[in-house]
Amino acid sequence: MIENSKLAIIGAGSVGSSLAYAALIRGSAREIVLYDMDRAKAEAEVLDLAHGTPFTGAGKITGGGDIEAVAGAKVVVITAGAKQQPGQTRLDLAGTNARILGELLPKLVELAPRAVFILVTNPCDVLTVAAQGVVDLPPGRILSSGTLLDSARLRWLIAEKAGVSAASVHAAIIGEHGDSEFPLWSQAKIGPTPLLEWTDEHGKLVFDSTERARLHEEVVGSAYKVIAGKGATNYAIGLSGARIVEAILRDEKAVLTVSTVLNNYNGVDGVALSVPVVVGKHGVERVLDVPMNDSEAAHFRASAEALHQSIQALGIDTP
Amino acid sequence: MIENSKLAIIGAGSVGSSLAYAALIRGSAREIVLYDMDRAKAEAEVLDLAHGTPFTGAGKITGGGDIEAVAGAKVVVITAGAKQQPGQTRLDLAGTNARILGELLPKLVELAPRAVFILVTNPCDVLTVAAQGVVDLPPGRILSSGTLLDSARLRWLIAEKAGVSAASVHAAIIGEHGDSEFPLWSQAKIGPTPLLEWTDEHGKLVFDSTERARLHEEVVGSAYKVIAGKGATNYAIGLSGARIVEAILRDEKAVLTVSTVLNNYNGVDGVALSVPVVVGKHGVERVLDVPMNDSEAAHFRASAEALHQSIQALGIDTP
Amino acid sequence: MIENSKLAIIGAGSVGSSLAYAALIRGSAREIVLYDMDRAKAEAEVLDLAHGTPFTGAGKITGGGDIEAVAGAKVVVITAGAKQQPGQTRLDLAGTNARILGELLPKLVELAPRAVFILVTNPCDVLTVAAQGVVDLPPGRILSSGTLLDSARLRWLIAEKAGVSAASVHAAIIGEHGDSEFPLWSQAKIGPTPLLEWTDEHGKLVFDSTERARLHEEVVGSAYKVIAGKGATNYAIGLSGARIVEAILRDEKAVLTVSTVLNNYNGVDGVALSVPVVVGKHGVERVLDVPMNDSEAAHFRASAEALHQSIQALGIDTP
Amino acid sequence: MIENSKLAIIGAGSVGSSLAYAALIRGSAREIVLYDMDRAKAEAEVLDLAHGTPFTGAGKITGGGDIEAVAGAKVVVITAGAKQQPGQTRLDLAGTNARILGELLPKLVELAPRAVFILVTNPCDVLTVAAQGVVDLPPGRILSSGTLLDSARLRWLIAEKAGVSAASVHAAIIGEHGDSEFPLWSQAKIGPTPLLEWTDEHGKLVFDSTERARLHEEVVGSAYKVIAGKGATNYAIGLSGARIVEAILRDEKAVLTVSTVLNNYNGVDGVALSVPVVVGKHGVERVLDVPMNDSEAAHFRASAEALHQSIQALGIDTP
Repeated sequence: MIENSKLAIIGAGSVGSSLAYAALIRGSAREIVLYDMDRAKAEAEVLDLAHGTPFTGAGKITGGGDIEAVAGAKVVVITAGAKQQPGQTRLDLAGTNARILGELLPKLVELAPRAVFILVTNPCDVLTVAAQGVVDLPPGRILSSGTLLDSARLRWLIAEKAGVSAASVHAAIIGEHGDSEFPLWSQAKIGPTPLLEWTDEHGKLVFDSTERARLHEEVVGSAYKVIAGKGATNYAIGLSGARIVEAILRDEKAVLTVSTVLNNYNGVDGVALSVPVVVGKHGVERVLDVPMNDSEAAHFRASAEALHQSIQALGIDTP
Repeated sequence: MIENSKLAIIGAGSVGSSLAYAALIRGSAREIVLYDMDRAKAEAEVLDLAHGTPFTGAGKITGGGDIEAVAGAKVVVITAGAKQQPGQTRLDLAGTNARILGELLPKLVELAPRAVFILVTNPCDVLTVAAQGVVDLPPGRILSSGTLLDSARLRWLIAEKAGVSAASVHAAIIGEHGDSEFPLWSQAKIGPTPLLEWTDEHGKLVFDSTERARLHEEVVGSAYKVIAGKGATNYAIGLSGARIVEAILRDEKAVLTVSTVLNNYNGVDGVALSVPVVVGKHGVERVLDVPMNDSEAAHFRASAEALHQSIQALGIDTP
Repeated sequence: MIENSKLAIIGAGSVGSSLAYAALIRGSAREIVLYDMDRAKAEAEVLDLAHGTPFTGAGKITGGGDIEAVAGAKVVVITAGAKQQPGQTRLDLAGTNARILGELLPKLVELAPRAVFILVTNPCDVLTVAAQGVVDLPPGRILSSGTLLDSARLRWLIAEKAGVSAASVHAAIIGEHGDSEFPLWSQAKIGPTPLLEWTDEHGKLVFDSTERARLHEEVVGSAYKVIAGKGATNYAIGLSGARIVEAILRDEKAVLTVSTVLNNYNGVDGVALSVPVVVGKHGVERVLDVPMNDSEAAHFRASAEALHQSIQALGIDTP
Repeated sequence: MIENSKLAIIGAGSVGSSLAYAALIRGSAREIVLYDMDRAKAEAEVLDLAHGTPFTGAGKITGGGDIEAVAGAKVVVITAGAKQQPGQTRLDLAGTNARILGELLPKLVELAPRAVFILVTNPCDVLTVAAQGVVDLPPGRILSSGTLLDSARLRWLIAEKAGVSAASVHAAIIGEHGDSEFPLWSQAKIGPTPLLEWTDEHGKLVFDSTERARLHEEVVGSAYKVIAGKGATNYAIGLSGARIVEAILRDEKAVLTVSTVLNNYNGVDGVALSVPVVVGKHGVERVLDVPMNDSEAAHFRASAEALHQSIQALGIDTP
C-alpha cells in the first residue's frame, strides 16, 4: 500500500492557516489536518482552504476541533499559543505557551508516535527545551523553526542590496530566535564570493561593518516592524514552516538553520539554539559544525546564556 | 528587451494579501505591487510577504501607500472596499464600494492604461457594470472573479461526494456571484461521464435532484459559513484571483467562469454575470455560448433580473 | 517512519529515459530506479539524468543492470521491448514483446509484490491481457498507458483549432491504442460547451463531421508521423507515463483514459481497452461507464474485436 | 499588450529537443520555437513535444525547418553543430562548429536583434569567442552554458558523498568547459560549512586531497563516460540550458557559472571562460570576482592558455 504523507497543523490562527495555505499550494504534503480548540474557527479555515484546492495540486485538507484527526501524522507543526504583542519580547510569552505545550504535546505524541514535531510557537527555543522535558522522544524528533525565517529575511536584504537573486545568497542567522540572534557573516557568500569581499561596480566594498550592523539590526527588528503594521507575522513564517515540512516528508537531507537542543556544541549544552543542521525524515539528522570567528563565538555564547536564563527563570526542566 | 509581467493588487486586506501570497508561491507574476491607502498596513504586508520570497521563485513584491507604484502594470486586481459582514448580503455592500471604485479606477487606468482590470471586491457583478460606466475601456478589459470561486466550491463538493480528484470534475456555477447563482448541472461532467448519470458502486445515481439541491444550497451558503467562522473569506478567493491573473499574463486562452458585461447574451444586455469565457492577454477574449435547459435558462434570467434591479436601485449608469 | 515513493522504470531506451527525465523534473516520485539489461546503457542514462538533479527537486535517480534494485518499488513502469518500426503496426510487435514480458514480470512481481504495474511497451493492450495471464495480481494492479497519449494528442489538436488552452479541452480517445481507437465525440467539451456545438466567431460550427474525421485520422496517424521523422516517439509518451505514476503515488483518484482488462463492460469481456477509469494508489480503482452513441458503441465493439483477434492469433491465455 | 517570453532553440538533435522538453515541463518560456535545417526531424520533434503539452503548463511549441520562425525571440539557444564523438576532445570539434556558427549567427541576430544568445554547442568557450568576432553585440549578450553542467556534476557528487541535498552544496567548476576545468575548492561550502572542513560522523575530514582529486577527475571524465554508454549527453545539458533561459527570461540576477568573453579578469583577456556571473534580462550583467588560492589561480591561467592556443590554432578573430 502506498503511504501518503500526512501533515498535522496545531492551531488555526493566522500562522497555522497561512502555513496550511502555503503547503497546499506548494504540494508540501498529500494530506493536511488543521486542528484548533476553537472548532468553529478551525472548520471555517479548513473550508476556505479546501475551496481553493481545485486550483492547487493533489493535496487535501480536513480538520476542525477534534484532535483525534492528528492520528498517524508524519509531521506535526505546533503553532498554538498566545501571540506576541506589540512591544512584547518573545521571551515574555514563554510561561503561557510552555503551559499550553505541556498539555498538548503528550496527547499529540500518543496520536502520532512516529512524527517529527516542529514548534513554530514563540519563544520557540525555550519551548523546544520545554518540549524535550515533557515527552520522551529521540533527539532530532523535536525542532523549531528557529532562525530559518530570520535567515530568509537576511538573505532577502542582502539580495536587494547586492542586486542579485536571493537564491544566490548563502547566509544564515544563528543563535536564539530573538534579540540575541546574529548573522554568521564570516561564512556568508554571494555565489562563491565571500560576502565580506563583495564590491559594487566601482570596486567599493558593499558590506562594510556599518552596513552589516544595519542589516543585523533590520533583521532583529523585522518581526516588531511587521507586527506594528499588521498585528502579527504570518506569511513568511508560514513559508518557513512549509519548507521544513518538505525537507522532512521528502527526506531531503537539506541543510537548514533551525533550532534543536544542542549537546556539547561549541560549549553549549542542554539549550536549544538555531545552527545549521541536516533535516530529513528523522527530523534533525545531524548538527553541523560551522566555523565562527571570535566575535561570532562570543555572540553565540551570549545567545546561549540569554536562553539559559529564560529557562531557569521559567523553572523548565532541561532534558 | 525582455518585458516582465507586473501585477498590481489594490487593497492590502486579507484578500489582497492572500492573493499576493498565492501569486508569489505560484509564480503567477514576475513583479507584484501591493497598494493600500493605509500605508503602514500595506508596508507591513509587503515586508511579511517579501521575507518569504527566499523560499519561492523569482517573483518580487514591493508596495505601500504610493499609488504611483501601479504604473505600467499589466494586470490590476482590485480588492479594495468595505467587507461583507456576517448576515449582510453582497448587494448591500454595493453603494459604498461603487463609490470607492469610482474614485480609484480613473487614476488606475491613467497609471496602467493597457492593463486588464480584475474586480474582486463585492458585489463584484454590480461593480463590473459600474466600472464600465466610469472608464472607457475596450470590452473584456474589465472583468470580475465572479463565480470562479463558487465553481471551485462546487467542484470540490462533487469531488468529495464522487470520490474523485477535483481536477476531473468539470462543473460551473454561473449567473450572479450571490444568492441567485446556480450550477449548470446539464453540462457538468466527471471525466467524460455526465454528472447526471454518475452512479455509486451499486449502480445508484449519486447526484439526484435532492443531492443537487443540497450541493447548490451548500455552495450558495459557503461564503456565509466561512464568514461566520472566521470573519472573512480570503484563501480560496486569493487562489481564484491568482488563477485569473495567470490566464492573462500567460495568455492562456483558458475557459474560466468569470463575470463581464454581457451584450445580447441569452436575452441579457448591459448586465455583468458570470458565464464561461476565454481569458487571455486581452482579458475576456470571447464569451462562450453554453447550452442551458429550461430550468437553467429561467435561473439565468432571474439572476440577470436580480442584478438589473440592484443596478437601478443604486442609480448606476450602464455602459 | 516516513515512506517515500519509489518508482522503477524497466527499460532505459528513449521512452524509459524520457519518462525518468519528466518524472525527475516534475517531482513525480522521490526515488527513481532505471533498469535495463544493457547495463552500460542504463548506467549512462542514470548518470546523465543524475547530473541534472541539482536543477530539479528532491528526487533521486539510481539504477543500472541489476534488477534487484527494483525491490520495494510502489510503481513499476515497463517500457522494455522491441520498438515499433516505420510502417509496422502495433500489433505486429506483439509476439516478441509478450515473450519479453513473460520473462520479466514474475521477477518484478517478486521484487515489488505490492506495486502497481504500468505497461508502456506496445502493443500495450495485448500485453496487458498477456500480463494478467502471467501473474496473479488483483484487478487494477496492471494497467497500460493505452490511449492517454492519444487523448492528449486529440486535446492538443482541438485546442489549436478552437484557439483555447488544452487544459480547457475535455476529450478522450478510447478503445485500442492503435488503428481502431476513436474519439468519444459525443462527450467532448470545451469548457462546459459541447464540442459538437462549438462555433467560430461567425457562428459557424467548427467541428463538423469533416473536421472530426480529419482530427480522428490525424490522431491515429500521429505516432507514424513522429516515427517517420525521428525514428521513435518518446517525449509525449514519457509525460503520459509520468502523469499516471503521479496519479498513483499521490492517490489522486484522477479520471484518466488508460487500458485495463475489462469485464462485462459494454459487452466486452477479458480484453484490455482504454476507457475512462479512476486511478489512485491501488491502480485502476474503478472503471467508469460513459455514454456512447450508436456509432461510438459500434467503434468500441470493433476495437474489442480487433484486440480479441490479436490475442487469439498470439495464443495468449486470457485471465 | 502583454509581451510573452519567446525562446528559440537552434538544432533539434538530442540536446536541443531535451532542452525544449525540460523547458516545457518547467514552464521556462511561454513560447518555444525549435528550428533545424533537417525539417522532417524538427517537425517530428515538435510534434512529439507538442503532444505532451496537455500534461504541462501554458507553454507552446512550434517550429520546423523555417528559420524565420525565430523572429522576435528573447533568448536564442544554439545547440546546432557536430557532436563530440567517443574519444574526441571538445577542442577537436572546434573548426567545423565555428564554421556552422559563422553561417547561422548573423541571420539569427537579424531575426532576433534584441535576444540574448546562449551557445550550447561544443567546444563552447572557443565558439563564444568566435561568435563575438562574427556579430557586433554588446558584451554579455553572448554566453555559453560553459561549466554550469560540470558544476552541477560536482555538486551532485559532493552531495552523494556528504549525504546531503545537492541544493545545500555550493560549489563551482570554473575555467574551460573541457579537460582544463577545475573545482574552486577554496570557496566550496555545504550549507555554511567550508567543504574543506566537512567531517564524517567520526570527525574525520571527508574531502581530503585524495578525495578532491578523485571528484575532480570524475567530473572531467563525466561527459566521456556518458558518451561511452549512450553515445551522447543530452538530459543534464538540457536542464542546464533551461536553467540559464529562466534566469534571463525572469530577469533573476542569478549567480551562475557560465562562459563569456573575459576582459582584464585575473590576467585573462579576450578569452571566454566560465566564472561566476550575474545572469538577468541582459544576459551576463556582471562578471564576479572570486578569491582563488595559488593553485586555483595557476589552474585558471592554464585553462586560459589552453583556450588561447585553440583560438589561435583555429585562426579565430578575437573581439
